[in-house]
Amino acid sequence: MIARINDKEARALLKECRTGRLGCIADGSPYVVPVNYILQDDKIYVHSLVGQKVNALRQDSRACLQVDEIVDDYHWRSAIAFGRYREVTQQAERDLVISELLARFPFLTPVESVPVHDGGSSVVVFCIQIERVSGVADS
Amino acid sequence: MIARINDKEARALLKECRTGRLGCIADGSPYVVPVNYILQDDKIYVHSLVGQKVNALRQDSRACLQVDEIVDDYHWRSAIAFGRYREVTQQAERDLVISELLARFPFLTPVESVPVHDGGSSVVVFCIQIERVSGVADS
Repeated sequence: MIARINDKEARALLKECRTGRLGCIADGSPYVVPVNYILQDDKIYVHSLVGQKVNALRQDSRACLQVDEIVDDYHWRSAIAFGRYREVTQQAERDLVISELLARFPFLTPVESVPVHDGGSSVVVFCIQIERVSGVADS
Repeated sequence: MIARINDKEARALLKECRTGRLGCIADGSPYVVPVNYILQDDKIYVHSLVGQKVNALRQDSRACLQVDEIVDDYHWRSAIAFGRYREVTQQAERDLVISELLARFPFLTPVESVPVHDGGSSVVVFCIQIERVSGVADS
């Protein structure tokens, strides 16, 4: 059986997880990739190389982030946040987000903490501004 | 660093996993849900109650299934299959799929193995017919 969890519980699960699955629309088709992220208030921050997801989100800003905690087939919770993509380009916000991403994900190398332009690739920090959340769990 | 894995490796990962994240488009926005599934040749089979994902896929058949194996931040693989949604309504195919789903996911109760109409809900078996796959891994 499946039951809805309330928005507060869904947000708590989004806060707790560190890896989620980002959904976007690429060339008209759904596209999903795992991402590490941090949640702050109504903002999900992600650090990424420019690639398929960033290109897709630049074309169509609608995005979602799905997270779950699956203990077994009988014990699980899943939450999803829907929102819009925005690139973080303002230096003060970018520095703050990168320092917090580095605190949570220390594997980010220093070179990733500054804009890099190398053979056409570059590192971006982006935000999903949350518009609504929902969640379900076993019951 | 990230490197592409070839289609054979991507398919092997899709075969190996049992839980994936299904991406679809619901009311114009990306939507992602965790699902248990089986892969047979070019077909991903999923068993579900009628709900948001089935309603969305009935409107727009484009779908993807993303799976991953994340050991830690340095050791991971991710694969994605893109395809089209089709409901499995032909009795012989449906019976075969349900018996194989039950073999892999024994928590499915017998009542779920037959069409159920209960207060408007019903159980569907659907297939994502794979059109292409891709994958990435740490390198």
